[in-house]
Formats: sequence, C-alpha cells, structure tokens
Amino acid sequence: MVDSEQRGLDDVVIGSSAISRVDGEEGLLWYRGYSIQDVVTHLGYEGVVHLLLWGELGDRDPPEELVIRLGELRGLSGPEAAMVDAIPSNAPPMDALRAGLGGLGGRGFGYPPDETDVLVLVAVLPTILTRFWRRVRGLPIVAPDPKLDHVKNYLTMLHGEPPSARRTTALESYFDILADHGMNPSTFTLRLALSTNTTLLAAESAAMGTLQGPLHGGAMDRVITMLDTVGDLDRAPRIIREALDRKERLFGFGHRVYKVDDPRADLLREIASHSAEPKRFELARGVEEIALDELARRRPQQRLRTNVEFYAAVVLESAGIPPPLFVPTFALARSIGWGAHAIEQAATNRLMRPELEYSGKELREFPSRFPGRRTADRRA
Amino acid sequence: MVDSEQRGLDDVVIGSSAISRVDGEEGLLWYRGYSIQDVVTHLGYEGVVHLLLWGELGDRDPPEELVIRLGELRGLSGPEAAMVDAIPSNAPPMDALRAGLGGLGGRGFGYPPDETDVLVLVAVLPTILTRFWRRVRGLPIVAPDPKLDHVKNYLTMLHGEPPSARRTTALESYFDILADHGMNPSTFTLRLALSTNTTLLAAESAAMGTLQGPLHGGAMDRVITMLDTVGDLDRAPRIIREALDRKERLFGFGHRVYKVDDPRADLLREIASHSAEPKRFELARGVEEIALDELARRRPQQRLRTNVEFYAAVVLESAGIPPPLFVPTFALARSIGWGAHAIEQAATNRLMRPELEYSGKELREFPSRFPGRRTADRRA
Repeated sequence: MVDSEQRGLDDVVIGSSAISRVDGEEGLLWYRGYSIQDVVTHLGYEGVVHLLLWGELGDRDPPEELVIRLGELRGLSGPEAAMVDAIPSNAPPMDALRAGLGGLGGRGFGYPPDETDVLVLVAVLPTILTRFWRRVRGLPIVAPDPKLDHVKNYLTMLHGEPPSARRTTALESYFDILADHGMNPSTFTLRLALSTNTTLLAAESAAMGTLQGPLHGGAMDRVITMLDTVGDLDRAPRIIREALDRKERLFGFGHRVYKVDDPRADLLREIASHSAEPKRFELARGVEEIALDELARRRPQQRLRTNVEFYAAVVLESAGIPPPLFVPTFALARSIGWGAHAIEQAATNRLMRPELEYSGKELREFPSRFPGRRTADRRA
Repeated sequence: MVDSEQRGLDDVVIGSSAISRVDGEEGLLWYRGYSIQDVVTHLGYEGVVHLLLWGELGDRDPPEELVIRLGELRGLSGPEAAMVDAIPSNAPPMDALRAGLGGLGGRGFGYPPDETDVLVLVAVLPTILTRFWRRVRGLPIVAPDPKLDHVKNYLTMLHGEPPSARRTTALESYFDILADHGMNPSTFTLRLALSTNTTLLAAESAAMGTLQGPLHGGAMDRVITMLDTVGDLDRAPRIIREALDRKERLFGFGHRVYKVDDPRADLLREIASHSAEPKRFELARGVEEIALDELARRRPQQRLRTNVEFYAAVVLESAGIPPPLFVPTFALARSIGWGAHAIEQAATNRLMRPELEYSGKELREFPSRFPGRRTADRRA
C-alpha cells in the first residue's frame, strides 16, 4: 500500500525553478531573488509581471511599456464577448472564467507558449470575469480602459466607477503577494499539462480547475463567513471551540509547506490593518488569536499557523471584492506566475508520467453469461 | 540540478489504484481484473462504464439500466445549449468542449464527486461536441436520442444518420480500449486537481487540457496526415527516411511505459483490418513496418514500438470520425476512466504538493531607482 506522504508527493522534488523561492523552514518567499517584503514595497503589479516573466526589474516602477501593452491586450472580440454573455447565469464564477477561456481558442495558442500568450491571458481574464459578473447582476458592462493600470482597471470594470486609492493599494498589494508561490498544486497542474505540449490556454484553464479546490484557493470566502458568523469578538471563543468540537476545519490556518509564519500572512495582516474598517480588522485579529490559541491547545504538536487565506480574505473584502470573486481574483493575480512557469516548463520539458501501484482484482475470466458476441459482430 | 527522469516522475509511484493495471514490461492492460482483450470481445461501452465505475460486470451485456440512464442524461438545458451555440466558430474542438463544460457549472457539482457526476459527464460530452461541430459547419443540430446506445448515439448526432454496423463496432471497440489506462498524464491531472477537493467538472476540464497535448492524445490526427502524405506505399521508405533525417518525430511510435508491444496497438491493428478500407489498411500496415525497421536501424537501443495512436487513428478514420475530432473522441472514451479515478481519488485523498528546487538568483536588494513609494501610499 502506498502511504499518505507518498500520495501527497510530500518532499518529492520534481524540478528546479528560478522563478520563486519558497522556504517553509525559514518562512521566506522570494521572486527572482527579491524578498516578497521588498517586492510589495517597491512594485505595482505590472512591475511584478515584468520581474516574474523576464527575470529582472524594469527601468522603473511602473514599467511603462508593459502597462501600455497589457492595456492594449484587454479586449475581447465580438464573438468572444458574445460567448461570455451566453454563459449560463447560474455558473459559478470559476466555471464561467474557464468557459470564457475556452472561447479564446481560436486565437491560435500554440506550443511552446510565448510571452504574448502569457500577457494576453493576464490582460484578458479581468475582462471576462467582470463582464460575466455584471451581466448576471443586470448591470451595464464596463469596457476595459487601456489607459488604466491593471488593478485599477479591474476594480473599475467590476464596480463601474474608479476605485479609491485605499482599495487600489490594498488590491495591488494582494496581487503582488499572490503572484507566484513555487510548485503549488495549480502551478503543478499547469506544468503537468504543459508537459504534454498542450497550449497555455489549456494549461491555465487546467490550473484554474485545481485552484478552485477548497484545499487550495477555494475556501477563502469561508473566512468571511466565519467572521460574519462570529460577528462580535465576545462570541468568538465559544463559536471557535464549538466548531472544533464538531471536527470542523477552521479556514485560514495551517499550510503544508510553512513550518513557521507564512510571510504572506504577515504582510497581508499589515495591509489589512490599513485597508480594512478598524472594527473589521479588530474582529479578524481577535478571531485569529483565539483560533491560534485554541488550535495550539488541542494540537500542540502540529503548530498550526495563520495561512495566507485568512488575511487575504480580509484584504479582498476591504478592496471591495465580493466573496464569490475571491478565488477568481486569486486566479487573476496568479496568472503571471502560471505564465512564467509555463515558459520555464517548456524550456526544459519532459512528459510527467508517474506510476500507480495496482491494488485491484487478480486476472479473472468472463462468466459464461457474456457470450462474446462482439468479436462475431466485428468479423461478420 | 534536477535530472530529466526526476522531472518526468519516471517510475515514481504516487498511489495505488484498483481500476486498471498497466504493465509495460509484460504488455498487459487489465480493467478491474479483466484483460483488455477479453473486455473488447465481451463488452460494449456501457459494459465498460459499468465495470470501471462499479468494479464489477453488470448482469449482462449491455447493462440495460445503465444504457437507459446514460440515455436520459444526454440533454443540455436551454441556456447550456445556447452557450454551446455561442462558442466562437474558430475555437478548436477541444477548447470548445472545455468551454461547453464550464457552462454546466450551474448544475451544482460538489465534492466528493458521486456516480451521477461521472455519468452526467460521460453522457453529455458527445452532445456538446457534436452540437458545436455541426453548427460551425452549418449543419442542422441532431438532438441526442435517449433510445440509442452511447456510441451509436454519438455517431448519429455527428453524421445526422444512423451509422453502419461496421462503423459502430469499430468505434465502440475504440471506446472500450481507450476507456482507461492507469496514471497517464490526463488522469494524473484529474487526480491532482481533485486533491484540492475541486469539482469533477473542473477536474475533467483540467484533464482535457492535458489530453490535448501532442505528447498525450493530441497528435493522433498527424498519423492520418502522414498516411495521406505517403499516399502510395512505394513512396513510404523515402518519405520516412527523409522525415527522420530532418529529425522529425514519427507520430504513432514509442511510449514511455511499454517496453514490449502495447496490447492496445495490437487490438486496434486487428480492428482496423476489419473496419478500414482494405487499401487504407494495407498502406497503414506497410508504413508501420517500414517505420519500425527504419527506427530500429537508427535507434537500436530504444526498441521503439507502434503505440496506441497509430492504429487508433486508422480505426477512428474508418468509423467516420473527422481528424479534428480524434482527440475530442479520445476524451469521450476516456471520460469514464477519469470518472472512476475521481471516485477513487476522493476516497483516499491527500493534497498533492511536491517541491521545486530553487535555481534562481540569490537574495538581492532593490536598486535606488525604485524608491518604494507603495509603502508611503499605503500609510497615507
């Protein structure tokens, strides 16, 4: 029997990458040699796109040419837009996003993926997502504005009005911090798909299918549900104890890789302290402390920490992102990481083809009630 | 540096499975303990669906209840159909299929996947695919017929008329033979995606993105291109030699797992000998022999064999499947394997999260031309 760690590929090194360094023992995250703390301080999202995709910083921040290029790539063709408008209204946003991506197939994505493929997908995802979201709500569609930078344009298309500086800064920091993270399951999916020489379009769509799983990105909105359920900090100890008594998982705590504090959680906590309503931040901070205490008491050997999802949810809420769009917004931020990994995977590709141990029935024969008519048919 | 075998997860056992046994040393393929030779002789596709999904044979072949159930599950809702009709005409069929799947998101796929999820996707894929294909060609849509069995219904929807027995038998054998194959890259993708507790809808869509890569299923149509290019067997030796001189890959030869003959290739060769036009089969047989001889001469240590794609292409052509639909048809056949693996993965799930070795730049500081305005903004 194959054990659990083996099934999880725990500690199996399946490649090398120059894109981001994730060190769960030290609590480090670097993009191309720059610490995530420095990145979020010095770069807007276009600067991160430049760094992750080309490996080096641009001339300045923001990198002007790239801002212009991404702005120009945001549009959908008439048939593409018509298809997005035909996605059934009851489709969850991640399914809608993947459906919309499929509609771009006629653009001629090939293999190996190139930088334009990467930038097209970074640029166009917010357009698909907001177009679907607003149409379903009966709101007029807001066309992309090529003059706005990436994050500001996303918020403008989403809300139909220019965002406040506070919201833009909060969301841009989120985009920076979530832009890449080593061989996480969605990036692994993307690289696995590409290892068959599929298109970037298909591989990013595959990555999105993985991202939306609740053990990856799909549970962020449940942090908000938890905060709303608690409502008042006085109620938190009882609600958290009862949830743990019922063996429920507390969303926002624990990560496979990090044995110490996740640096992204620390950054997002600080950002939330500026971007969220003070009462909301206090509630989140209090719930975090009570949850960590209670988890430490019950599972002292596990040393569960606050993970990236907890304050990511608070930051996204503070930026005006509705909870059903938390995971799609994660996909938007991560799209540049996926793109950079796609270019890297293609450069040193080998088809990924692991093995399964067969644990099924031994060889057996068909019972006589199956007369084998099909051979007779075929030879008739 | 991580070597090539490590990057390919060669010989890494990442789980156990009771569904199919693939033994590349012995040239064996079993479904649930039944040899693929026996399966194709004794079962139609619904029989294979029953066997792979539930682990045992039905009462008889075909399993009547399952034929009825699959027939009932074929329909699209009005909004789902309207979305398929809005997929841009220039989208490649695999992108269209994934787009169409995204439109089913409102049906409420959850986690863990259940048998109905599996059967819905098996049933509905041919409806999406043929609806898109015929509309793009200006042909009237053929609604699914719940009274027909699965393969006959697919061919009827595709061609707008009942298929010949010869075509049905050939295609049904193809569906049987391609229904599952251990931890191939698309099934691996599906299980990886599901390991985050995503939906079967998202995970199958991800699997399809991988399947369409030319190193997996996406090159089957190039076998037909090669046969058409050769045209006459007399020209084959020169054309094959010249292609190999130009370092081109010959599609239809070589497989990571099989060190001996792939049993599926042997079966499909025999099926093609009955289903294809005699001249076409002779051409294929001749090209195969010349290619194998030439490959053996040039790369004696590799012992390249005919793989499943070579005669799969000949069989699909003989069943009236247009080459652009070869890979989507592979997806239709494989959908039950994916479904069975999804149920199995969910039963013993652990998040798959391997590691990457960081090979990038050492820690560096931002140059002074990046003044770090963003912190200032955030604190303003």
